[in-house]
Amino acid sequence: MSVLVVGTTALDSIRTPKAENPRLLGGSASHAAVAASFFAPVKLVGAVGDDFPRRYVSLYERHGIDLEGLQRVKGGKTFHWSGEYEVNMNNRQTLNTELGVIEHFTPTLPKNYERSPYILLANISPSLQLHVLDQVKKPKFIAADSMDLWLNIALDEVMKLLKRIDLFVLNDSEAHQLTESDNIVKAIRRIHKMGPRFVIVKKGEHGAVYSGPDGMFITPAFPLQNVVDPTGAGDSFVGGLMGYLASCKGPIHRHLRRAIVHGTVTGSFCCEGFGLKRTTKITRGHIDRRIKEFDALVKY
Amino acid sequence: MSVLVVGTTALDSIRTPKAENPRLLGGSASHAAVAASFFAPVKLVGAVGDDFPRRYVSLYERHGIDLEGLQRVKGGKTFHWSGEYEVNMNNRQTLNTELGVIEHFTPTLPKNYERSPYILLANISPSLQLHVLDQVKKPKFIAADSMDLWLNIALDEVMKLLKRIDLFVLNDSEAHQLTESDNIVKAIRRIHKMGPRFVIVKKGEHGAVYSGPDGMFITPAFPLQNVVDPTGAGDSFVGGLMGYLASCKGPIHRHLRRAIVHGTVTGSFCCEGFGLKRTTKITRGHIDRRIKEFDALVKY
Repeated sequence: MSVLVVGTTALDSIRTPKAENPRLLGGSASHAAVAASFFAPVKLVGAVGDDFPRRYVSLYERHGIDLEGLQRVKGGKTFHWSGEYEVNMNNRQTLNTELGVIEHFTPTLPKNYERSPYILLANISPSLQLHVLDQVKKPKFIAADSMDLWLNIALDEVMKLLKRIDLFVLNDSEAHQLTESDNIVKAIRRIHKMGPRFVIVKKGEHGAVYSGPDGMFITPAFPLQNVVDPTGAGDSFVGGLMGYLASCKGPIHRHLRRAIVHGTVTGSFCCEGFGLKRTTKITRGHIDRRIKEFDALVKY
Repeated sequence: MSVLVVGTTALDSIRTPKAENPRLLGGSASHAAVAASFFAPVKLVGAVGDDFPRRYVSLYERHGIDLEGLQRVKGGKTFHWSGEYEVNMNNRQTLNTELGVIEHFTPTLPKNYERSPYILLANISPSLQLHVLDQVKKPKFIAADSMDLWLNIALDEVMKLLKRIDLFVLNDSEAHQLTESDNIVKAIRRIHKMGPRFVIVKKGEHGAVYSGPDGMFITPAFPLQNVVDPTGAGDSFVGGLMGYLASCKGPIHRHLRRAIVHGTVTGSFCCEGFGLKRTTKITRGHIDRRIKEFDALVKY
């Protein structure tokens, strides 16, 4: 089954202690869509400007991503984010954000997107996530990601969103911000009360904690020797997770834990290159081999 | 089989954002010995002064700990540590350290300690750890813990120690300090080169990473709703691990991963009370039940 992915389609200029990379393909939807594409057909919803390089469109196409929902705004500028990572690669600082065409983006879904069974509302403004949600018909499973910005400036809409989704994915600092608890067990319980039956708290290099009707599940990150650029790893994680889920038959809760492991491994590749450079060079075979390594890493 | 535990036997005065607790039973050997005692007979090597409360001796005795190697120094003062935890319970600050009888402690092992098969050199000066190691005969498995202090002031002796032990246990910041690498995979590889075949890097609430001849193993911490006081959790971890190993038959590498899980769970109880308050109230049954919960938390 297919996954509809909405989120930002951006150009990212990323500085780390080791290198500088201008105008890479980035954005939550780009990372999530490419990650999901290893497992299932993907329909992308996003907007770009005239300045969006043709080679990035080709890159989506090579991953079989349906681009009917990608608006190309004449005279518009693509969303551009620039940021810098500190030495330990865990702390990120935004240097500049130019919203461009994202600012007035209110997509109307193409007809054949409306009945997508798996909906991934990757990080973008919650009003836009809600706007997309209003247009889908009988979705089977809805996941949403967010970021600290929306918790700060659009909390009411985030709260509305939480009542309408199945799975909420957020990182540990956002979980603490949203629930005012620095204890992850308590924070998760409070998030469940806000709506979603399924919650995943991402902890970066320390893995992820899932909670759902089948209890909690804790998974480490895949240990990497060379972390080049963690930008988009969280989006790749949830993209891989949703793609894997969409590829499974039967009740969702039966596959969710293994989907989290697939998301973890897909996200690990993302960290090994700038932007999407590494992720777009791998195949499902690379992922499956690393899944086997992961199985061996946690088995006892 | 039995575990010989050497380390500090101390009085700990612990301040946290929520409470203050003066002169609790503490020290690396106390935590490790009590944790190991749930699984195997324990022989304690340590030194205390006249001021060491009789009720703490009884507490060791209730756990069946052999105290022949516990020196009671007339006119001496027990090692006293006082410290303070910050709000998130992960950062600890030492307020005061009075070495007392530990300062000139050079134990001669009781005759029936010499052939202990499992040796746990819990955190104490590396010269003392080496001094104990010189006296044991044909040990089956030697584990050592350390702390940042010894890496700072006695690195040469730590390096000597590393060549003579099987398992080195340290926390992530110490691993970075020792290897000058902030990447855990690289740090572990460097520590192997310093001597030990088995390495465990403890990451507090984020679990632990093991590396040995059978590859790597990554385990989360047991998620707790109420962390009261993490002092001694690392000592309980390695104590539980060594106690469990000593209770197993056959090659060590076959049991090490499960031993790490037992250490993890034993250490989790330690965090739920001040000093040894919670750990000394549980039984093997509590541990086994939490092991089952842990199994469910990581299974997929």
